[in-house]
Amino acid sequence: MSEPEQSENIPEDPAGKAKECPNGASCARSKEDLELAVAYVSDALYNRNIYFDTSPRAVRLYLLYNHWLPRVLVYVFILVDLSLAAFEEPAVLLWPLWATMLLELLCLLAFTLRLAHYAKVIPRDKFWKDPKNICIMVTLLLTLMDMIIYGALVVSGCSAVRWSRVLRPLLLVNVTEGRQLRRAFRSIRNALPEICYVFLLFMFSVLMFALMALKLLGKRGLKTVDGAPYFTNYLEIVLDLYVLVTTANSPDIMMPAYNSEVVFTLFFILYIFINTYIFMSAFLAVVFNNYKKYLKEEVRQLVRAKRHKMVRAFAILQERREAEAEPVVSRAHWRQLVRLVQPGISTAHRELLWSVCDLQNRGCIGKLAFVQLADLLNIEVITLKSRPHPLQNWFPTLYLSAPSRLLCRMVQHRAFVIVYDLIILVNAVIIGLDEENPIISNCEWLFLTLYLLEIVLKLYVFEPRSFFSKHSFWNCLSTSHIISTRFDTIIVVSALIATIINSALKSSGGYNSREILDIVFILRVLRLIRVVDSIQRFRTIINTLIRIGPAILTFGQLILVVYYIFAMVGMELFKGKVRFYGEDSSDPAKAYCGNPLLQGTAFAQSNYCRNNFNNVVSSFILLVELTVVNQWHVLSSGFATVTHASARIFFVVFHIAVVIVIINIFVSFVLEAFYVEYSVEKGDLQTSLERKIEELELAVAQEKLEENLVNNMETTDNDLGSGQSATRNKSTLMFKIASKRYRTVDAFLQRMFEADLDPEDFAENDEPEAQTSGNFANPTFSSA
Amino acid sequence: MSEPEQSENIPEDPAGKAKECPNGASCARSKEDLELAVAYVSDALYNRNIYFDTSPRAVRLYLLYNHWLPRVLVYVFILVDLSLAAFEEPAVLLWPLWATMLLELLCLLAFTLRLAHYAKVIPRDKFWKDPKNICIMVTLLLTLMDMIIYGALVVSGCSAVRWSRVLRPLLLVNVTEGRQLRRAFRSIRNALPEICYVFLLFMFSVLMFALMALKLLGKRGLKTVDGAPYFTNYLEIVLDLYVLVTTANSPDIMMPAYNSEVVFTLFFILYIFINTYIFMSAFLAVVFNNYKKYLKEEVRQLVRAKRHKMVRAFAILQERREAEAEPVVSRAHWRQLVRLVQPGISTAHRELLWSVCDLQNRGCIGKLAFVQLADLLNIEVITLKSRPHPLQNWFPTLYLSAPSRLLCRMVQHRAFVIVYDLIILVNAVIIGLDEENPIISNCEWLFLTLYLLEIVLKLYVFEPRSFFSKHSFWNCLSTSHIISTRFDTIIVVSALIATIINSALKSSGGYNSREILDIVFILRVLRLIRVVDSIQRFRTIINTLIRIGPAILTFGQLILVVYYIFAMVGMELFKGKVRFYGEDSSDPAKAYCGNPLLQGTAFAQSNYCRNNFNNVVSSFILLVELTVVNQWHVLSSGFATVTHASARIFFVVFHIAVVIVIINIFVSFVLEAFYVEYSVEKGDLQTSLERKIEELELAVAQEKLEENLVNNMETTDNDLGSGQSATRNKSTLMFKIASKRYRTVDAFLQRMFEADLDPEDFAENDEPEAQTSGNFANPTFSSA
Repeated sequence: MSEPEQSENIPEDPAGKAKECPNGASCARSKEDLELAVAYVSDALYNRNIYFDTSPRAVRLYLLYNHWLPRVLVYVFILVDLSLAAFEEPAVLLWPLWATMLLELLCLLAFTLRLAHYAKVIPRDKFWKDPKNICIMVTLLLTLMDMIIYGALVVSGCSAVRWSRVLRPLLLVNVTEGRQLRRAFRSIRNALPEICYVFLLFMFSVLMFALMALKLLGKRGLKTVDGAPYFTNYLEIVLDLYVLVTTANSPDIMMPAYNSEVVFTLFFILYIFINTYIFMSAFLAVVFNNYKKYLKEEVRQLVRAKRHKMVRAFAILQERREAEAEPVVSRAHWRQLVRLVQPGISTAHRELLWSVCDLQNRGCIGKLAFVQLADLLNIEVITLKSRPHPLQNWFPTLYLSAPSRLLCRMVQHRAFVIVYDLIILVNAVIIGLDEENPIISNCEWLFLTLYLLEIVLKLYVFEPRSFFSKHSFWNCLSTSHIISTRFDTIIVVSALIATIINSALKSSGGYNSREILDIVFILRVLRLIRVVDSIQRFRTIINTLIRIGPAILTFGQLILVVYYIFAMVGMELFKGKVRFYGEDSSDPAKAYCGNPLLQGTAFAQSNYCRNNFNNVVSSFILLVELTVVNQWHVLSSGFATVTHASARIFFVVFHIAVVIVIINIFVSFVLEAFYVEYSVEKGDLQTSLERKIEELELAVAQEKLEENLVNNMETTDNDLGSGQSATRNKSTLMFKIASKRYRTVDAFLQRMFEADLDPEDFAENDEPEAQTSGNFANPTFSSA
Repeated sequence: MSEPEQSENIPEDPAGKAKECPNGASCARSKEDLELAVAYVSDALYNRNIYFDTSPRAVRLYLLYNHWLPRVLVYVFILVDLSLAAFEEPAVLLWPLWATMLLELLCLLAFTLRLAHYAKVIPRDKFWKDPKNICIMVTLLLTLMDMIIYGALVVSGCSAVRWSRVLRPLLLVNVTEGRQLRRAFRSIRNALPEICYVFLLFMFSVLMFALMALKLLGKRGLKTVDGAPYFTNYLEIVLDLYVLVTTANSPDIMMPAYNSEVVFTLFFILYIFINTYIFMSAFLAVVFNNYKKYLKEEVRQLVRAKRHKMVRAFAILQERREAEAEPVVSRAHWRQLVRLVQPGISTAHRELLWSVCDLQNRGCIGKLAFVQLADLLNIEVITLKSRPHPLQNWFPTLYLSAPSRLLCRMVQHRAFVIVYDLIILVNAVIIGLDEENPIISNCEWLFLTLYLLEIVLKLYVFEPRSFFSKHSFWNCLSTSHIISTRFDTIIVVSALIATIINSALKSSGGYNSREILDIVFILRVLRLIRVVDSIQRFRTIINTLIRIGPAILTFGQLILVVYYIFAMVGMELFKGKVRFYGEDSSDPAKAYCGNPLLQGTAFAQSNYCRNNFNNVVSSFILLVELTVVNQWHVLSSGFATVTHASARIFFVVFHIAVVIVIINIFVSFVLEAFYVEYSVEKGDLQTSLERKIEELELAVAQEKLEENLVNNMETTDNDLGSGQSATRNKSTLMFKIASKRYRTVDAFLQRMFEADLDPEDFAENDEPEAQTSGNFANPTFSSA
């Protein structure tokens, strides 16, 4: 059972204030009540689990706490704090000590303020019980301590280590908004015991094979390619065989034995089969199963907490009506609430949601309908207005003339897309050719013109405002088009600008800016991506990959935390041991990376000098190389040569932490996401919303819309004689569910496990006690 | 929807002969009827789907066809046919042409005979409709043709190619018994379209990145470590980037760009992230999903076919009884049937199965109970007799004396196991030390004595017959003990014998046989495996891994087929191009593998000369190395150097076929097996069988049995005065379900998907029509 975050709880008795309105009329709610309800609903919407104080002042502070500005600011300060590593010794760009110290103090101050704000929001006892807060405070204190000690030591001329830098990523984990990241860490922690057992068994197998290898091969006097003795030292064998599991030294490690006798290959093949294939798959299997199991449990708890919060919000806004048996929420209150929770939502969209909730058109909704609001708001609905093209308004005769209409039809035709796909393919070939050739470089202008022409034509045919709006009209015509016209337009226009600048520079001073040329090249190649978009099957696959996006962001943070810690430790251990001399340097030390110990090693021979821990950027790049695994034994033995054999431990630990644990979690996520994409259908609520949209005849069907456009034009054409008809000016509202997009990661996860979730989690129980007494221990509800 | 094998069908109307017995007595069935029923039941038991003729002669021939001897013979001939590659040019050991030709002709004859036998068994039209048979015949004919052409060409002195050798593995696939292998191939074929789409998208991404790399890096005049131009040729870049996806040339491919400027690493990191992590996970996800989907469908069909065959067998044996409303099968017929289907089953076990079927003790069973017989027989039940130790019979006073009983208790105590685990650990350390030291080598004798003592002690305490029986007593005490005492005993005794032989050889002539010493070492190390068995958690993991065993066998065949084809092609393409000179050779050509073209290449420098296609054994080893992926670019460029650049295609195709498709299917299987192990519970039928066993008080509980042993002894001790009591001589029968072992791969698969299977597949419908009209198109039943 996973542990939910201790103090993120919902208050004990918020419903105490709920007013009873004996008369049938809707009775007004105080501003405080409304704010409390807003806090609950927005917590439910974003799956926040903060046990805030329900006093009006605390609620107002809480709403401020959740405002986007302070949240963004905290992340900016974390970013500043983390990137300080680039300016501290060993630095990419060394800043004076006082500058980095001052910046760090500023960051610490910001974190302290944020924490103080949080302390004001939640009850004191809850605050002190939360390990997150304790962790942040300890981190801040330790950092301050370390800064003072370090400053004092540096001033007194002693050498000192800024050990507290390892703690910096902890702030990213423990910040209130880091829920996804904490969940990922919990997921890892939960899988850890199982991984440990498999790992021990795997290590046992490696040790056994190493013992066998020592006995079989150690005494034969074999030599490696370098002439070193082969398989004579037990510890070396264990390390070599461990590296073989990662396949990094295959087949080299086998060759001496193979050259001596064929039978020995059986030993290695058996080893690779058991340890690389069976055990590595077993690791993936264990991580995958645990990941699925615990994530399901957590999402289930999230769903429960969400319903619970909605029930509380309902309790605040509810009123009794004579006509209704159950307490209800009036339309006015509901509207106020939605407007406060999601100010960005359009009135039309809000009315649509209301009509989904209030199916019987009673003017008020019961608890059941109210509770689904959080889920309804999570469904992304595109509101769009179909209005005539502005050109149609300005030059109706011209725009609706026969040639113009023919042009519109041509642009909308499938052949138009195919022609442009062909142009792109030809362009791809041209790009591959030598651009020094004047014909080729002139071709670029031709293609740019063609692409611009396409954009102009589309602007002519489609309504420009919707073309450039957030959920563009064109985008909506085929919602799954991931490479939107906007992206395309940006690329083409940027390419145009960059090409013009480049040509200007070239023709003026003969100076050819390398950077601008690079950008031009990249933009040119990026233009080609559009081809993929034309093929339906590719689009589905890409959509799946893109939908993993939010989860990849979480994994990005996870990797950042782990990399940062390893980079800090690595920099302290290995800084300055390996030196990189520029390409043009003629220093003889260049051949052995400035460290005579490396002379003749594979590390120096492979020209790996730049793979060092001399600053945070090269550390990160080196860690990426270690994550990719290949040649990691060369890298690790290089650093072991310049320091001590035990330095390999650092690299092995990194391999276990990142490759065996984190990468497998990443693969698990991709597996699960593909599985969901292949099997899970739309959720119930989405279906009911979609049905409602269709019922109200506001749906946007892809073909229908395209037809509409043309028909619309034709109708307007027909009644052109009667001047500006009502039909043309009426801007028809239309809705479309961006069915597979989710506003939050949680909503995506919820959908992922919707099929597996216990239906009781979706049932609205009136008594919170009934939920608490459920058969799963949920500390979140223990106080309710 | 997967295509089941076309002609493996069940006959149209076998039930026509079912007799009606108007009187209540059981009416005897003819031998022919019984044989037909046996054929059906054993087909259901082993999931054979052969549409055999129901004439008595054909049924008898069919039973002969399924006899173990011809089946084993066919596999022996296939093995001989496949291993001919080792003796044909280019050979491991060259045999004269007439010898291999003669052997191959013999094999062809055997296959023809087997096919002729099959043709006799099934109806003519079904035989010719089966693609398997056509495939075998075409293979045989083509092979014969090729042999004649090759023979003629060789005799006339021309050079010739034995191209038909590529077809040999097809026999393994198309043989009647190769159902599992065909299923694996079908699984691959079904996943192929989806894989293709992802692959195309992946290739598009690689091509785009290559274009970008060409534009960004091609003009900078960078050099690789070898001084070659870096990223200037588009095709080379594509190949390099493809290799980077397999991580084989990371980070070397990045280093020149990284050395020139840090920003370029962004390009490579993005490339690795998208192509190595995202796309490779996507391949696994697609293969995994397809694998699950189609396998489920196939297993569902298998289950249906099985029920159907059982219904037909029932129809043959059924009779009407006055007391019963429905037709039934009498106990006598049931017994005859089970005895014929599974001759190895003990009478007690048979009676147990009957009592599970005939729950009401009516002396006959209905259709519902009859149909589950196939599943019941698939549950492995261990029958064991608890009888007193023979020593107790021979020397009762001595065996039951106080010191003897104390000894028994000691051996059964947990501490005994722990002491021996510690001894093994000490042994492990000793093995690791230098065995030239006389003290250490004498230690070996000590340990051997200790291990022998353990075996003797166990033999003293436990009944020797059960100790050595197939499902040993000891084994049964803890069914999950995978490293059984028997395995342990064999290892210890072999080690003893080998050590004695080695010492004898050593002391006699001072001659130290390397081979025997190697075996001694391996046996010594293998002894250590026992430690793992003591820890419960390890046992579970190992059990899961072992349970994948049968599936791994199927994958072994799959890999064999693919490797064989690639080896044959590779040998024709690359034989003799790379030469290996022995370790002691002083030939200067040794440095460049006998091919001047290889001078200075990474291939020769890494000493990869023995990785060649000069015979079938080294080809297979090379293919294993290519499967492991690392350094495959060095190998492929080596062979491209000695032949032609297009030779790389061979290696890329191999990579796609084996690493992207087959290894992913293997990983999918491991994932699924672990998932099953973690989530699926015992099947219903097993539960009912287990309940019955418990009901009959025949269950073997682990602790109970251990207690029983001691109690038994104590009771016998108490009534020792009354001489040979009945209690002691009575051999109590006991049963235990080896709950997680399955006799056939199909049964295992069935369990794997049991949870997902439509319950209707398990319902016994009386009308076959009702099954046929089900909502899934099942060609197997289209004729019913």
